[in-house]
Amino acid sequence: MWMAELASRSGLSVATVKYYLREGLLPSGTATGATRAAYDETHVRRLRLIRALTDVAGLRLESVRQVLDGIEAADSWHDAVGAAHTRLGTAESTPPTPGSLARVDDMLEAQGWQLAPGHPQAAALAHALDVLDDVGHPISDEMLFLYAHALRPIVMREVASVHLDERGELIDADVEAAVIGTVLQEPVLLSIRRIAQENVSRKLTEGT
Amino acid sequence: MWMAELASRSGLSVATVKYYLREGLLPSGTATGATRAAYDETHVRRLRLIRALTDVAGLRLESVRQVLDGIEAADSWHDAVGAAHTRLGTAESTPPTPGSLARVDDMLEAQGWQLAPGHPQAAALAHALDVLDDVGHPISDEMLFLYAHALRPIVMREVASVHLDERGELIDADVEAAVIGTVLQEPVLLSIRRIAQENVSRKLTEGT
Repeated sequence: MWMAELASRSGLSVATVKYYLREGLLPSGTATGATRAAYDETHVRRLRLIRALTDVAGLRLESVRQVLDGIEAADSWHDAVGAAHTRLGTAESTPPTPGSLARVDDMLEAQGWQLAPGHPQAAALAHALDVLDDVGHPISDEMLFLYAHALRPIVMREVASVHLDERGELIDADVEAAVIGTVLQEPVLLSIRRIAQENVSRKLTEGT
Repeated sequence: MWMAELASRSGLSVATVKYYLREGLLPSGTATGATRAAYDETHVRRLRLIRALTDVAGLRLESVRQVLDGIEAADSWHDAVGAAHTRLGTAESTPPTPGSLARVDDMLEAQGWQLAPGHPQAAALAHALDVLDDVGHPISDEMLFLYAHALRPIVMREVASVHLDERGELIDADVEAAVIGTVLQEPVLLSIRRIAQENVSRKLTEGT
Protein backbone atom coordinates (compact mmCIF):
# COMPACT_ATOMS: atom_id res chain seq x y z
CA MET A 1 0.00 0.00 0.00
CA TRP A 2 1.05 3.60 -0.47
CA MET A 3 1.60 6.26 2.15
CA ALA A 4 -1.93 7.68 1.97
CA GLU A 5 -3.53 4.32 2.70
CA LEU A 6 -1.00 3.56 5.44
CA ALA A 7 -1.85 6.85 7.16
CA SER A 8 -5.57 6.34 6.84
CA ARG A 9 -5.47 2.74 8.10
CA SER A 10 -3.42 3.68 11.15
CA GLY A 11 -5.58 6.67 11.97
CA LEU A 12 -2.75 9.18 11.62
CA SER A 13 -2.03 12.07 9.30
CA VAL A 14 0.48 11.64 6.46
CA ALA A 15 2.63 14.31 8.10
CA THR A 16 2.76 12.32 11.35
CA VAL A 17 3.66 9.08 9.55
CA LYS A 18 6.46 10.89 7.69
CA TYR A 19 7.68 12.29 10.98
CA TYR A 20 7.87 8.81 12.53
CA LEU A 21 9.75 7.60 9.44
CA ARG A 22 12.29 10.42 9.76
CA GLU A 23 12.66 9.72 13.48
CA GLY A 24 13.32 6.04 12.78
CA LEU A 25 10.32 4.84 14.80
CA LEU A 26 8.81 3.31 11.67
CA PRO A 27 10.98 1.17 9.36
CA SER A 28 11.22 2.38 5.77
CA GLY A 29 8.95 0.87 3.12
CA THR A 30 10.15 -0.91 0.00
CA ALA A 31 11.34 1.72 -2.50
CA THR A 32 9.43 1.48 -5.77
CA GLY A 33 10.82 4.62 -7.34
CA ALA A 34 12.76 7.74 -6.47
CA THR A 35 10.05 9.19 -4.24
CA ARG A 36 7.67 6.29 -3.75
CA ALA A 37 7.69 3.38 -1.31
CA ALA A 38 5.31 0.54 -0.57
CA TYR A 39 4.23 -0.40 2.95
CA ASP A 40 2.68 -3.55 4.39
CA GLU A 41 0.77 -4.83 7.41
CA THR A 42 3.83 -4.68 9.66
CA HIS A 43 3.87 -0.91 9.14
CA VAL A 44 0.19 -0.56 10.00
CA ARG A 45 0.72 -2.64 13.12
CA ARG A 46 3.76 -0.63 14.21
CA LEU A 47 1.92 2.66 13.73
CA ARG A 48 -1.08 1.48 15.74
CA LEU A 49 1.28 0.43 18.50
CA ILE A 50 3.02 3.81 18.54
CA ARG A 51 -0.34 5.53 18.58
CA ALA A 52 -1.51 3.38 21.47
CA LEU A 53 1.65 4.02 23.47
CA THR A 54 1.45 7.77 23.04
CA ASP A 55 -2.32 8.05 23.29
CA VAL A 56 -3.43 5.65 26.01
CA ALA A 57 -0.24 5.08 27.93
CA GLY A 58 0.66 8.77 27.55
CA LEU A 59 4.30 8.05 26.74
CA ARG A 60 6.50 10.67 25.18
CA LEU A 61 8.05 9.77 21.83
CA GLU A 62 11.45 9.26 23.43
CA SER A 63 9.98 6.66 25.79
CA VAL A 64 8.15 4.96 22.91
CA ARG A 65 11.46 4.64 21.10
CA GLN A 66 13.11 3.10 24.16
CA VAL A 67 10.30 0.62 24.64
CA LEU A 68 10.40 -0.42 20.97
CA ASP A 69 14.20 -0.77 21.04
CA GLY A 70 13.97 -2.91 24.15
CA ILE A 71 11.47 -5.25 22.52
CA GLU A 72 13.56 -5.69 19.41
CA ALA A 73 16.67 -6.57 21.42
CA ALA A 74 14.94 -9.12 23.65
CA ASP A 75 15.25 -12.90 23.28
CA SER A 76 12.21 -13.92 25.30
CA TRP A 77 8.94 -12.52 26.51
CA HIS A 78 10.13 -11.90 30.06
CA ASP A 79 13.31 -10.30 28.79
CA ALA A 80 11.15 -8.04 26.66
CA VAL A 81 8.92 -7.32 29.64
CA GLY A 82 11.99 -6.59 31.71
CA ALA A 83 13.40 -4.32 29.03
CA ALA A 84 10.14 -2.42 28.69
CA HIS A 85 9.91 -2.05 32.47
CA THR A 86 13.46 -0.85 32.80
CA ARG A 87 12.83 1.81 30.23
CA LEU A 88 9.51 2.76 31.79
CA GLY A 89 11.00 2.89 35.27
CA THR A 90 11.19 6.12 37.16
CA ALA A 91 13.68 8.56 35.73
CA GLU A 92 16.68 9.61 37.80
CA SER A 93 15.66 10.19 41.40
CA THR A 94 17.08 9.80 44.84
CA PRO A 95 18.21 6.23 45.56
CA PRO A 96 15.85 4.20 47.77
CA THR A 97 16.59 3.73 51.47
CA PRO A 98 17.99 0.37 52.67
CA GLY A 99 14.88 -0.03 54.82
CA SER A 100 12.54 0.11 51.84
CA LEU A 101 14.75 -2.17 49.75
CA ALA A 102 14.62 -4.68 52.60
CA ARG A 103 10.81 -4.45 52.64
CA VAL A 104 10.73 -5.16 48.90
CA ASP A 105 13.02 -8.14 49.42
CA ASP A 106 10.69 -9.46 52.12
CA MET A 107 7.70 -9.15 49.82
CA LEU A 108 9.57 -10.93 47.01
CA GLU A 109 10.56 -13.74 49.33
CA ALA A 110 7.03 -14.12 50.69
CA GLN A 111 5.73 -14.44 47.12
CA GLY A 112 8.53 -16.72 45.98
CA TRP A 113 9.61 -14.13 43.42
CA GLN A 114 13.16 -13.20 42.48
CA LEU A 115 14.77 -10.22 40.84
CA ALA A 116 18.41 -9.87 39.88
CA PRO A 117 20.34 -7.73 42.41
CA GLY A 118 20.08 -4.08 41.47
CA HIS A 119 17.03 -4.69 39.25
CA PRO A 120 15.54 -1.27 38.47
CA GLN A 121 12.01 -2.39 39.28
CA ALA A 122 12.96 -3.26 42.88
CA ALA A 123 14.51 0.18 43.24
CA ALA A 124 11.44 1.83 41.69
CA LEU A 125 9.13 0.07 44.13
CA ALA A 126 11.36 0.88 47.12
CA HIS A 127 11.48 4.51 46.05
CA ALA A 128 7.68 4.66 45.82
CA LEU A 129 7.51 3.34 49.39
CA ASP A 130 9.96 6.00 50.56
CA VAL A 131 7.87 8.74 49.01
CA LEU A 132 4.70 7.51 50.74
CA ASP A 133 6.67 7.57 54.01
CA ASP A 134 7.85 11.10 53.29
CA VAL A 135 4.37 12.46 52.76
CA GLY A 136 3.20 10.86 55.99
CA HIS A 137 1.09 8.09 54.40
CA PRO A 138 3.25 4.99 54.75
CA ILE A 139 1.94 1.81 53.20
CA SER A 140 1.93 -1.16 55.59
CA ASP A 141 3.64 -4.48 54.93
CA GLU A 142 0.21 -6.06 55.21
CA MET A 143 -1.09 -3.85 52.40
CA LEU A 144 1.94 -4.67 50.23
CA PHE A 145 1.23 -8.33 50.77
CA LEU A 146 -2.42 -7.76 49.86
CA TYR A 147 -1.43 -6.04 46.62
CA ALA A 148 0.87 -8.88 45.63
CA HIS A 149 -1.67 -11.49 46.65
CA ALA A 150 -4.51 -9.85 44.73
CA LEU A 151 -2.42 -9.37 41.59
CA ARG A 152 -1.22 -12.98 41.49
CA PRO A 153 -4.21 -14.55 39.73
CA ILE A 154 -4.40 -11.66 37.26
CA VAL A 155 -0.77 -11.99 36.30
CA MET A 156 -1.00 -15.78 36.00
CA ARG A 157 -3.79 -15.32 33.48
CA GLU A 158 -1.99 -12.56 31.61
CA VAL A 159 1.17 -14.59 31.29
CA ALA A 160 -0.66 -17.77 30.36
CA SER A 161 -2.51 -15.96 27.59
CA VAL A 162 0.83 -15.01 26.06
CA HIS A 163 2.65 -18.32 26.48
CA LEU A 164 0.09 -21.11 26.16
CA ASP A 165 -2.15 -22.26 23.35
CA GLU A 166 -5.69 -23.55 23.81
CA ARG A 167 -4.42 -26.94 24.94
CA GLY A 168 -2.10 -25.41 27.53
CA GLU A 169 1.04 -26.17 25.48
CA LEU A 170 3.92 -23.70 25.43
CA ILE A 171 4.07 -21.54 22.30
CA ASP A 172 6.64 -19.07 21.05
CA ALA A 173 5.56 -15.86 22.69
CA ASP A 174 4.95 -12.75 20.65
CA VAL A 175 7.32 -10.19 22.12
CA GLU A 176 5.11 -7.35 20.99
CA ALA A 177 2.60 -8.71 23.47
CA ALA A 178 5.10 -7.83 26.18
CA VAL A 179 4.43 -4.20 25.59
CA ILE A 180 0.73 -4.64 25.15
CA GLY A 181 0.40 -6.58 28.36
CA THR A 182 2.62 -4.29 30.33
CA VAL A 183 1.87 -0.85 29.10
CA LEU A 184 -1.53 -0.82 27.48
CA GLN A 185 -3.36 -2.84 30.11
CA GLU A 186 -2.06 -0.65 32.94
CA PRO A 187 -4.58 2.12 32.25
CA VAL A 188 -7.36 -0.49 32.34
CA LEU A 189 -6.25 -1.72 35.75
CA LEU A 190 -5.90 1.80 37.15
CA SER A 191 -9.22 2.90 35.69
CA ILE A 192 -11.06 0.03 37.35
CA ARG A 193 -9.34 0.78 40.67
CA ARG A 194 -10.40 4.43 40.45
CA ILE A 195 -14.00 3.50 39.67
CA ALA A 196 -14.01 1.02 42.54
CA GLN A 197 -12.61 3.59 44.98
CA GLU A 198 -15.32 6.11 44.21
CA ASN A 199 -18.05 3.51 44.55
CA VAL A 200 -16.82 1.85 47.70
CA SER A 201 -16.20 5.21 49.37
CA ARG A 202 -19.65 6.52 48.49
CA LYS A 203 -21.37 3.39 49.75
CA LEU A 204 -19.41 3.33 52.99
CA THR A 205 -20.08 6.95 53.90
CA GLU A 206 -23.62 7.25 52.61
CA GLY A 207 -24.66 3.91 53.96
CA THR A 208 -26.55 2.91 50.83
CA MET B 1 10.46 28.72 60.04
CA TRP B 2 12.22 30.71 57.34
CA MET B 3 12.59 29.89 53.66
CA ALA B 4 15.95 28.11 54.03
CA GLU B 5 14.60 25.67 56.61
CA LEU B 6 11.39 25.13 54.61
CA ALA B 7 13.43 24.21 51.54
CA SER B 8 15.75 21.92 53.43
CA ARG B 9 12.92 20.11 55.24
CA SER B 10 11.02 19.51 52.03
CA GLY B 11 14.10 18.32 50.14
CA LEU B 12 13.90 21.08 47.53
CA SER B 13 16.13 23.97 46.57
CA VAL B 14 15.21 27.51 47.66
CA ALA B 15 14.87 28.42 43.99
CA THR B 16 12.30 25.66 43.45
CA VAL B 17 10.28 26.67 46.51
CA LYS B 18 10.24 30.26 45.32
CA TYR B 19 9.08 29.09 41.91
CA TYR B 20 6.16 27.17 43.44
CA LEU B 21 5.26 30.28 45.47
CA ARG B 22 5.22 32.43 42.33
CA GLU B 23 3.15 29.82 40.50
CA GLY B 24 0.62 29.76 43.33
CA LEU B 25 1.12 26.05 44.07
CA LEU B 26 2.32 26.91 47.58
CA PRO B 27 0.33 29.40 49.72
CA SER B 28 2.28 32.46 50.88
CA GLY B 29 3.83 32.48 54.33
CA THR B 30 3.04 35.03 57.03
CA ALA B 31 4.83 38.28 56.19
CA THR B 32 7.18 39.36 58.99
CA GLY B 33 8.85 42.19 57.14
CA ALA B 34 9.18 43.66 53.68
CA THR B 35 11.12 40.70 52.28
CA ARG B 36 10.69 38.04 54.93
CA ALA B 37 7.93 35.51 55.59
CA ALA B 38 7.43 32.71 58.08
CA TYR B 39 6.25 29.22 57.07
CA ASP B 40 4.74 26.38 59.05
CA GLU B 41 4.11 22.62 58.88
CA THR B 42 1.31 23.02 56.32
CA HIS B 43 3.88 24.42 53.91
CA VAL B 44 6.27 21.51 54.47
CA ARG B 45 3.43 19.08 53.93
CA ARG B 46 2.28 20.76 50.74
CA LEU B 47 5.80 20.82 49.30
CA ARG B 48 6.32 17.14 50.04
CA LEU B 49 3.04 16.38 48.32
CA ILE B 50 4.01 18.38 45.23
CA ARG B 51 7.37 16.65 45.17
CA ALA B 52 5.73 13.25 45.43
CA LEU B 53 3.25 14.02 42.65
CA THR B 54 5.96 15.20 40.27
CA ASP B 55 8.60 12.69 41.28
CA VAL B 56 6.83 9.37 41.80
CA ALA B 57 3.60 9.89 39.92
CA GLY B 58 5.47 11.72 37.16
CA LEU B 59 2.88 14.47 36.84
CA ARG B 60 3.63 17.73 35.10
CA LEU B 61 3.23 20.87 37.20
CA GLU B 62 0.02 21.78 35.39
CA SER B 63 -1.51 18.43 36.38
CA VAL B 64 -0.31 18.86 39.96
CA ARG B 65 -2.09 22.20 40.08
CA GLN B 66 -5.32 20.65 38.79
CA VAL B 67 -5.17 17.83 41.30
CA LEU B 68 -4.57 20.24 44.20
CA ASP B 69 -7.39 22.54 43.04
CA GLY B 70 -9.74 19.57 42.83
CA ILE B 71 -8.94 18.53 46.38
CA GLU B 72 -9.51 21.97 47.79
CA ALA B 73 -12.90 22.26 46.11
CA ALA B 74 -14.19 18.86 47.22
CA ASP B 75 -16.70 18.28 50.02
CA SER B 76 -16.05 14.60 50.63
CA TRP B 77 -13.38 12.01 50.09
CA HIS B 78 -15.06 10.39 47.13
CA ASP B 79 -15.74 13.78 45.58
CA ALA B 80 -12.04 14.53 45.98
CA VAL B 81 -11.17 11.16 44.52
CA GLY B 82 -13.52 11.84 41.63
CA ALA B 83 -12.05 15.29 41.10
CA ALA B 84 -8.51 13.95 41.11
CA HIS B 85 -9.48 11.20 38.67
CA THR B 86 -11.23 13.57 36.33
CA ARG B 87 -8.15 15.74 36.20
CA LEU B 88 -5.87 12.74 35.78
CA GLY B 89 -8.08 11.24 33.08
CA THR B 90 -6.84 10.96 29.56
CA ALA B 91 -6.55 14.26 27.75
CA GLU B 92 -8.66 14.91 24.67
CA SER B 93 -8.81 11.84 22.50
CA THR B 94 -11.21 10.11 20.19
CA PRO B 95 -14.52 9.32 21.91
CA PRO B 96 -15.00 5.67 22.92
CA THR B 97 -17.15 3.38 20.78
CA PRO B 98 -20.67 2.49 21.97
CA GLY B 99 -19.59 -1.15 22.11
CA SER B 100 -16.86 -0.46 24.63
CA LEU B 101 -19.06 1.81 26.69
CA ALA B 102 -21.60 -1.01 26.85
CA ARG B 103 -18.89 -3.40 28.05
CA VAL B 104 -17.93 -0.96 30.80
CA ASP B 105 -21.60 -0.69 31.81
CA ASP B 106 -21.83 -4.48 31.99
CA MET B 107 -18.78 -4.66 34.23
CA LEU B 108 -20.15 -1.92 36.49
CA GLU B 109 -23.46 -3.72 36.77
CA ALA B 110 -21.82 -7.06 37.52
CA GLN B 111 -19.84 -5.42 40.33
CA GLY B 112 -22.79 -3.43 41.66
CA TRP B 113 -20.96 -0.19 40.93
CA GLN B 114 -22.40 3.00 39.53
CA LEU B 115 -21.01 6.02 37.78
CA ALA B 116 -22.90 9.15 36.80
CA PRO B 117 -23.75 9.17 33.06
CA GLY B 118 -20.87 10.67 31.10
CA HIS B 119 -18.42 10.14 33.97
CA PRO B 120 -14.94 10.67 32.50
CA GLN B 121 -13.56 7.51 34.09
CA ALA B 122 -16.06 5.30 32.23
CA ALA B 123 -15.04 6.98 28.97
CA ALA B 124 -11.35 6.58 29.83
CA LEU B 125 -11.78 2.86 30.48
CA ALA B 126 -13.85 2.36 27.30
CA HIS B 127 -11.22 4.21 25.30
CA ALA B 128 -8.47 1.99 26.69
CA LEU B 129 -10.49 -1.05 25.59
CA ASP B 130 -10.87 0.40 22.10
CA VAL B 131 -7.13 0.93 21.80
CA LEU B 132 -6.40 -2.66 22.81
CA ASP B 133 -8.88 -3.74 20.11
CA ASP B 134 -7.15 -1.50 17.57
CA VAL B 135 -3.71 -2.97 18.18
CA GLY B 136 -5.11 -6.48 17.83
CA HIS B 137 -4.89 -7.43 21.52
CA PRO B 138 -8.47 -7.18 22.75
CA ILE B 139 -9.06 -7.76 26.43
CA SER B 140 -11.81 -10.29 27.14
CA ASP B 141 -14.86 -9.64 29.30
CA GLU B 142 -13.65 -12.46 31.50
CA MET B 143 -10.35 -10.67 32.06
CA LEU B 144 -12.13 -7.40 32.84
CA PHE B 145 -14.19 -9.25 35.40
CA LEU B 146 -11.01 -10.78 36.85
CA TYR B 147 -9.43 -7.34 37.18
CA ALA B 148 -12.45 -5.95 38.99
CA HIS B 149 -12.77 -9.01 41.17
CA ALA B 150 -9.09 -8.99 42.15
CA LEU B 151 -9.08 -5.27 42.92
CA ARG B 152 -12.17 -5.42 45.14
CA PRO B 153 -10.48 -6.50 48.40
CA ILE B 154 -7.63 -4.06 47.85
CA VAL B 155 -9.96 -1.14 47.35
CA MET B 156 -12.12 -2.11 50.34
CA ARG B 157 -9.02 -1.96 52.52
CA GLU B 158 -7.80 1.29 51.00
CA VAL B 159 -11.15 2.99 51.50
CA ALA B 160 -11.59 1.60 55.02
CA SER B 161 -8.17 2.90 56.03
CA VAL B 162 -9.28 6.40 55.07
CA HIS B 163 -12.79 6.36 56.55
CA LEU B 164 -12.69 4.18 59.64
CA ASP B 165 -10.88 4.43 62.97
CA GLU B 166 -9.45 1.48 64.87
CA ARG B 167 -12.88 0.54 66.18
CA GLY B 168 -14.42 0.60 62.73
CA GLU B 169 -16.29 3.87 63.36
CA LEU B 170 -16.68 6.44 60.59
CA ILE B 171 -14.28 9.37 60.86
CA ASP B 172 -13.97 12.60 58.90
CA ALA B 173 -11.79 11.62 56.00
CA ASP B 174 -8.66 13.56 55.20
CA VAL B 175 -9.17 14.74 51.63
CA GLU B 176 -5.44 14.90 51.06
CA ALA B 177 -5.53 11.15 51.45
CA ALA B 178 -7.64 11.06 48.31
CA VAL B 179 -4.64 12.06 46.27
CA ILE B 180 -2.25 9.87 48.18
CA GLY B 181 -4.44 6.83 47.78
CA THR B 182 -5.19 7.46 44.17
CA VAL B 183 -2.03 8.79 42.71
CA LEU B 184 0.89 7.77 44.87
CA GLN B 185 -0.13 4.17 45.42
CA GLU B 186 -0.62 3.57 41.70
CA PRO B 187 3.12 3.19 41.03
CA VAL B 188 3.30 0.63 43.85
CA LEU B 189 0.52 -1.44 42.31
CA LEU B 190 2.03 -1.26 38.82
CA SER B 191 5.51 -2.03 40.08
CA ILE B 192 4.32 -5.18 41.83
CA ARG B 193 2.44 -6.26 38.69
CA ARG B 194 5.58 -5.79 36.59
CA ILE B 195 7.71 -7.78 39.02
CA ALA B 196 5.09 -10.52 39.10
CA GLN B 197 4.91 -10.67 35.29
CA GLU B 198 8.63 -11.16 34.93
CA ASN B 199 8.71 -13.87 37.56
CA VAL B 200 5.67 -15.80 36.43
CA SER B 201 6.80 -15.67 32.81
CA ARG B 202 10.30 -16.88 33.64
CA LYS B 203 9.01 -19.75 35.76
CA LEU B 204 6.48 -20.85 33.17
CA THR B 205 8.91 -20.92 30.26
CA GLU B 206 11.97 -22.19 32.11
CA GLY B 207 9.99 -24.76 34.03
CA THR B 208 11.75 -24.04 37.32
